[in-house]
Amino acid sequence: MAATVKSIDQAADVARYVRGLGAQARSAARDLARSDTASRNRALTATAEAIRAGRAALLAANRQDLDAGRGLASALADRLELTEARIEAMAVGLEEIAALPDPIGEVTGVGYRPSGIQVGRMRVPLGVVGIIYESRPNVTADAGGLCLKAGNAVILRGGSEALHSNRAIAASLRAGLTEAALPADAIQVVETTDRRAVGELLRLDEFVDIIVPRGGKGLIERVMAESRIPIIKHLDGICHVFIDERADPDKAIRVAYNAKTQRYGTCCTMETLLVDRAIAPEVLPPLAARYLEAGVEIRGCPATRRLVDGCAEATPEDWDTEYLAPILSIRVVDGLDEAIDHIGTHGSAHTDAIVTEDYSRAQRFLREVDSSSVMVNASTRFADGFEYGLGAEIGISTDKLHARGPVGLEGLTSQKFIVLGDGHIRQ
Amino acid sequence: MAATVKSIDQAADVARYVRGLGAQARSAARDLARSDTASRNRALTATAEAIRAGRAALLAANRQDLDAGRGLASALADRLELTEARIEAMAVGLEEIAALPDPIGEVTGVGYRPSGIQVGRMRVPLGVVGIIYESRPNVTADAGGLCLKAGNAVILRGGSEALHSNRAIAASLRAGLTEAALPADAIQVVETTDRRAVGELLRLDEFVDIIVPRGGKGLIERVMAESRIPIIKHLDGICHVFIDERADPDKAIRVAYNAKTQRYGTCCTMETLLVDRAIAPEVLPPLAARYLEAGVEIRGCPATRRLVDGCAEATPEDWDTEYLAPILSIRVVDGLDEAIDHIGTHGSAHTDAIVTEDYSRAQRFLREVDSSSVMVNASTRFADGFEYGLGAEIGISTDKLHARGPVGLEGLTSQKFIVLGDGHIRQ
Repeated sequence: MAATVKSIDQAADVARYVRGLGAQARSAARDLARSDTASRNRALTATAEAIRAGRAALLAANRQDLDAGRGLASALADRLELTEARIEAMAVGLEEIAALPDPIGEVTGVGYRPSGIQVGRMRVPLGVVGIIYESRPNVTADAGGLCLKAGNAVILRGGSEALHSNRAIAASLRAGLTEAALPADAIQVVETTDRRAVGELLRLDEFVDIIVPRGGKGLIERVMAESRIPIIKHLDGICHVFIDERADPDKAIRVAYNAKTQRYGTCCTMETLLVDRAIAPEVLPPLAARYLEAGVEIRGCPATRRLVDGCAEATPEDWDTEYLAPILSIRVVDGLDEAIDHIGTHGSAHTDAIVTEDYSRAQRFLREVDSSSVMVNASTRFADGFEYGLGAEIGISTDKLHARGPVGLEGLTSQKFIVLGDGHIRQ
Repeated sequence: MAATVKSIDQAADVARYVRGLGAQARSAARDLARSDTASRNRALTATAEAIRAGRAALLAANRQDLDAGRGLASALADRLELTEARIEAMAVGLEEIAALPDPIGEVTGVGYRPSGIQVGRMRVPLGVVGIIYESRPNVTADAGGLCLKAGNAVILRGGSEALHSNRAIAASLRAGLTEAALPADAIQVVETTDRRAVGELLRLDEFVDIIVPRGGKGLIERVMAESRIPIIKHLDGICHVFIDERADPDKAIRVAYNAKTQRYGTCCTMETLLVDRAIAPEVLPPLAARYLEAGVEIRGCPATRRLVDGCAEATPEDWDTEYLAPILSIRVVDGLDEAIDHIGTHGSAHTDAIVTEDYSRAQRFLREVDSSSVMVNASTRFADGFEYGLGAEIGISTDKLHARGPVGLEGLTSQKFIVLGDGHIRQ
C-alpha cells in the first residue's frame, strides 16, 4: 500500500481530511494538465503491469473485503468479488484507454477575425474529478484510468465494503503514475468509511470540478441533493420504443423485442412500448407472444389488453416506473403527437426510439423528442459509449448541459478560447 | 401591455405565481423547439417593428420608472433611461440576431459504427432560460431575443426600478411572437418586485434549464448561493498580461497599455501586469510613463517601485482586486513559471495574455494557463462575443462546464445523440 495516501487514523477531522485530499488533487491536476500524451499513456500501461504483477495482493485485499462482508446479499457480494479474469479485464481496460487518442490539446475552429486576431478553441482537462461509487472495485481502475487519460486528477470514494480492494487497485494506479514521473496524488482514495466524508467531498467546490456518481438510485439522489459541484449523472432510464403506423412490422418486432430482452437490468432497456392504434392489431399479438415466451410480464392499457390474451392492466404508476426487470408496460396511442407527449410526460430523457418507414415522422421524432439519445429503427440498447464509438464511458448523462448521453473522454475535458495576435490591440 | 402576462395582483402566493410562469414557459418551450427558423426570425423582426412603432409607449413607461426612481444614483438612472437612440439600438440588435445563422437542428459527426447503426449529434434548444438582471432595460430585448433565436423560452426578472420599461419591451416581444404564430409565453416577465420571487425562480429546476445573471457582484453571489439550477456567469475579471523576457518591447507596451486603458470598467480589462525581471528595466519606465499620462494609478511590488518613480506600494490585497477603475497593480516576476503560478493563484480564470516572441513559452502559456480565454500578443480587451465572431453574447462564463468564455447562441443550446438504423438490434 502506498504510504502517501493519508490514512483517516491520522486525521481527527473528516472535513479537514477531505479538504486535504482536495488540495493535493488540485496541485496534482496542475502537473497533469501540463503532462504530455506519452507520460499519461505510460502511467496507464504501467498500472496495467502493476495490476497483473500484484494479482496475489489484489486477491488477498479483496478476500479481506469479502470476509468482512459475509452478510452481504449475493448480488452485492458478486459485484464485490475480484477474480483472475476480472483482474485481467481491468488491466486490458487500462491498456485500451491508453490506446485511445489523446483528447487534450486539440485545437479547433481557429480563424482570423476582422480585427486581425486569430480565435479558436483548445481542449484542456477539467481539473479534478470526484467519483462516488458502490461495490464494484473495477470502477477504481476503469473510471480512474479514464480520468487520468484526459489529464484530470481523481478522488475516489468507493463503498466501505470494498475499501481494501479499492485501496489496492489505487496503489497500482499510483505506482503507474510514479513510474511515468507523474504525481501519485493524481489518484487518491477517500480512506474512511465515515459517511460524512461523502458530504464533505460534495461541498469541495473549491477543489473539485465535477462529481460522477456511479451506483443505485439512492446514491444518485443523495449526491443530487447535497452536491455544490456539477454532476454527470442519470437518475432513471425510462426508455420508450414507439411503433409508428407506418413501421415495417418485422423491424418493429425485432427492435422492440431486443430493446426489452437483450438485457433487463440496464438503463437503456425499454420499459414502455408505445404502439400506434392503426398497426397495433398487426404487431402486438405476435410481439406479445415472443415476450411471453421469454418470460416477460406485460402490463397494458385497455386497448392492449383487448389484443393480448392474459395481459394485466397497467396502473398509472407503470408509465413512470423503471422496472429493470422482465416486465413491460404497453400503451396504444393515437399517432405521433400522443407518443411524443407520453415520452415528454413520463420519460426520463434517456433514450427513446421510433420504428417507422415514414420520412417526415422520423424527422419530427428526432427533432422533437428531448432525450439524450433519440433513435430511428434501432434498439434503445445501443445507447452506450462503446457502441457510439466513444471508446469508453464514464457514465450516461440525462442532463442537457456540458455532456449529454453516454459520456466518454470528451466529457472529462473543457474547451477554452485561445487568441493569437501580433501585438494586436482593441480599437 | 399584453394582458396575457399574469399580474402579481392576481397571485396571492409568490411561489405559486413563479411556478405558474415556469409551467407556462416549459409548455411554450416545447412549441418553440419544434418551430422553424423562419418563424423565429419573423418573431424577432416583428418585435423590432413593434419596438419602433411603440416608441412613444416605451418612452412613457420608461418615464414612469425614471419618475419613481428620482432618488437613484446618476449612473443607475443613466443605465435605466431609454432614449430614441437606445430604442433604435434595441430594434437593430434584434434584426442582427434574426440575421445570425440558426444554430438549431445542426447535425454533426454522423458516421457508421461496426454494428451498422449511424451515430451523430443534433443541436437542440436548452429549453427554458431564466435571466436575472439589473437596471438596463435593453437586456430584456437583447437577451430575450438571443434566447428566442436559439429556440428557448425565457423568464425575465429585471430590477424593480425598471419594471414598467421591461414590461413594455416584453410586450413588444410577445407581440412579435404572436405575429409569427409562436406562443407569447415564450417571453414572460416576473411582474412582482417581491424579492422572494428571485429565490423561487432559482429553485425552479423542474422548469428552468439555465440561469443567466447579469449585473453586479452582489447579484451574482446571491444567485450562486441560492440557485439549484446551473448558471452561466463570471464573478470576477482579474485579468493579467505577462510581459515575457523575450517580448518585443513595442508590442508589449502597446498591448499592456490597451489592455488597461481602452476601457476601465469591463470584466476583460487587465488589472495586474506581470513583467519578467530581465525585461522590466527596458519596458516598465516608458510604459509607466504612458499610464501616468493617462491618469492610471500604479501600485507596484518593490522591484517595480525601484523602476517607476512615485509608484505606490502594492498590498497583498491588490493582487486579488478587480479595480474596474484607472488603477493597475504591477509585479516583477522571475520567469514564466512564476507568472503562471501568480495567475493560477490570484486570477479569476477569465482572460490572461502573454507577450512574447518565444515559441515554446507561448505554447506553454496557452496550454497551462487555465483561463476561459488565453492570449498571445493580443490585448485582453478582445475577450468579447462580437470580437470572437459569436455574433452576440448572452454573457461570459469563467466556469469550465458547458459554456466557457464569451457565450453566444451555442451556449444556449444542447447536443443530443441521434442514432439511425434500419431495424438494427444489439447482439
